[in-house]
Amino acid sequence: MLTRVNHIALAVPHLATAIARYRDSLGAKVSAAQPLPEHGVTVAFVTVGDTKIELLEPLLEASPIASFLARSPDGGMHHICYEVTDIIAARDQLTAAGARVIGNGTPRIGAHGNSVMFLHPKDFFGTLIELEEVN
Amino acid sequence: MLTRVNHIALAVPHLATAIARYRDSLGAKVSAAQPLPEHGVTVAFVTVGDTKIELLEPLLEASPIASFLARSPDGGMHHICYEVTDIIAARDQLTAAGARVIGNGTPRIGAHGNSVMFLHPKDFFGTLIELEEVN
Repeated sequence: MLTRVNHIALAVPHLATAIARYRDSLGAKVSAAQPLPEHGVTVAFVTVGDTKIELLEPLLEASPIASFLARSPDGGMHHICYEVTDIIAARDQLTAAGARVIGNGTPRIGAHGNSVMFLHPKDFFGTLIELEEVN
Repeated sequence: MLTRVNHIALAVPHLATAIARYRDSLGAKVSAAQPLPEHGVTVAFVTVGDTKIELLEPLLEASPIASFLARSPDGGMHHICYEVTDIIAARDQLTAAGARVIGNGTPRIGAHGNSVMFLHPKDFFGTLIELEEVN
């Protein structure tokens, strides 16, 4: 079902500081900050090999990243996104196996313009999993 | 400095359950459990594309995974491991930039037989980073 790791998302309290740290201390290639109001975050992409690390800062107080940072003010690892080729088939296989999809079960359009859905972290040992359909 | 993501490590409270969940629900290829007494963990490797997800269960009460699970009993995302080609050069560049290496600064031999070191999560927004030398 899982074809590759698309990205690992990290919540950070201050994006400009995190961009500078990843670029200057770790020598990584980091994009400019991109506000994504429909997702409630500002994001910067760190490219490491063929994997992306997404640095996420809350854009709105209602952002899911804001509630994460309320629990972990320093920031931390937020989710892993895996690619699947058929997100509806993946959803049906997962729910048949007893895993819970967050939301109403209909994939939504993610930050990269593809269909995405999130799986409940309680069903995967505290790790929030995003699935993204990439063909 | 960072050439690729080597693995993402997830702490889990019960490895056999996690192996079954990743294999049966997510359809992933998962190795058998391997005890690594010198690291205080039992590990299983989930292969997703060319990235590995390491599922870590404490092997000893003194395991760093045991203290993580004491704070997060469900489990959760524990660290990201990036590959570097020269771990000593990476250490020197990072410490010159003010980042802290955990331990005495001398790389140790990691689970894959390569030199590894960990960077302090306080310097990277709550994310524990492992660097592994791979040539």
